[in-house]
Amino acid sequence: MPNPIKRTVFFVSDGTGLTAEALGHSLLTQFEDVEFKQIRIPFLDNIAKAQDAVARINAQGELDGMRSIVFTTLVNQDLASIVHQSDAFCLSYFETFLSPLEAELGQKSNHTVGRSHGTADSSDYKKRIEAINYTLAHDDGITDRDLEESDVILVAVSRCGKTPTSLYLAMQFGLKVANFPLIPEDFDRGRLPSTLERHRPKLFGLTIQPERLTQIREERRAASKYASLPNCRYEIAEAEKMMRREGIRWLDSSTKSIEEISTTILQELKLR
Amino acid sequence: MPNPIKRTVFFVSDGTGLTAEALGHSLLTQFEDVEFKQIRIPFLDNIAKAQDAVARINAQGELDGMRSIVFTTLVNQDLASIVHQSDAFCLSYFETFLSPLEAELGQKSNHTVGRSHGTADSSDYKKRIEAINYTLAHDDGITDRDLEESDVILVAVSRCGKTPTSLYLAMQFGLKVANFPLIPEDFDRGRLPSTLERHRPKLFGLTIQPERLTQIREERRAASKYASLPNCRYEIAEAEKMMRREGIRWLDSSTKSIEEISTTILQELKLR
Repeated sequence: MPNPIKRTVFFVSDGTGLTAEALGHSLLTQFEDVEFKQIRIPFLDNIAKAQDAVARINAQGELDGMRSIVFTTLVNQDLASIVHQSDAFCLSYFETFLSPLEAELGQKSNHTVGRSHGTADSSDYKKRIEAINYTLAHDDGITDRDLEESDVILVAVSRCGKTPTSLYLAMQFGLKVANFPLIPEDFDRGRLPSTLERHRPKLFGLTIQPERLTQIREERRAASKYASLPNCRYEIAEAEKMMRREGIRWLDSSTKSIEEISTTILQELKLR
Repeated sequence: MPNPIKRTVFFVSDGTGLTAEALGHSLLTQFEDVEFKQIRIPFLDNIAKAQDAVARINAQGELDGMRSIVFTTLVNQDLASIVHQSDAFCLSYFETFLSPLEAELGQKSNHTVGRSHGTADSSDYKKRIEAINYTLAHDDGITDRDLEESDVILVAVSRCGKTPTSLYLAMQFGLKVANFPLIPEDFDRGRLPSTLERHRPKLFGLTIQPERLTQIREERRAASKYASLPNCRYEIAEAEKMMRREGIRWLDSSTKSIEEISTTILQELKLR
């Protein structure tokens, strides 16, 4: 087999560059046979930094023996034009899409550096911070106080991904999320904890393949009954039976990312 | 003043649509005079869903009296071409950038739906989950065990944003983050807690404007000494003095988003 093609990719932005990286990354995953070295250059907000970036991009191209690839989300046109004078292959997000959008809207864009993440004094931002605090305070059934304030209540047996999903929903969407473990006592009693019954429309369940659950639990408590495959099978079967009986929507988290799980929950609970 | 222009924007993806939304949003913030209603359509992965989306997009356009605007990150070309037959103004991320990138790389793209967030069985994903667990277990000085495993240790007086920043670094970048409050006892003693001294290269500080800190603390404990402006001024002055003396890099979080703070920390500690 020939050596894989290697290319260096820069994500250049006047903000954090997180959006540039996310979108560049989704394009690069379309080329399996190429090995990409990825470098993010954030906060490029003056001419000196733009010139430094060009020097770095060009030096990398010479080192690689192949010109670099550059994704930019620079709003400032002067800075963008400096970066575009590098020897690299440049794909410019704003230059590509802003003109057609201006034409469609019949408006000129204001060409200000985007604060797409919201700053510390915006109300969106405060909402996110409050949501994170709420979610941390309502992790893993710590308390059933203030559940009426919650936007979502996740239920699942231990180690299905409740905590990361809860935190992601809080951080990304500003949702207040509580999560509760389903435990053998709940299955013996054959019904939901009574504090949760009142909040049924907000409940969402996670489940998982028993084989996957036993792997995850083994890493935590090796050779325990808790982690054994028969016990994982039992807990999951009981949890699914309960969710079915109680009319709780759920999804199987086995092969899903936190982002996919969160997006599905938003859709199912019609939260946006 | 005339009524603001109102337009509906759809973000259409075969994945979560989070990237489509982030990049679309950064473009839309360039048009201050337009009021955008934003709708995300995720998991569009078959013809029936594509046709439903077209019906929804067209109906919205008729309702608005102005055609809708659609950002797509559809990898599947058959589905993309259905969506592009809608009456909307369509901007297609993959169609725009994939061909030039194919030419540059001398490779055809594989046109598979991106899993840019990583799935539950990838090693990246496991790393993220472990990082989240580590970070939760090392929040707010709960423990100084296993600090050698950490990638970053944040220090700051109470309510500067340590916890949200730590969780974001863990969730987004798979970094293990511990955070410790700087408290009056540390200032009286005039030095860092001894458990932290050994880890100086990983330390990073947050500070904040006293006026902003007093606001935040007032929401938590109104009319307390803790929240008072003189006390906030004192704590911040002492914390900055200590960080300066100990050679700890820091930033002012007053007007920064979690994403901006996190990106700066990665840069300063050269973590990527």
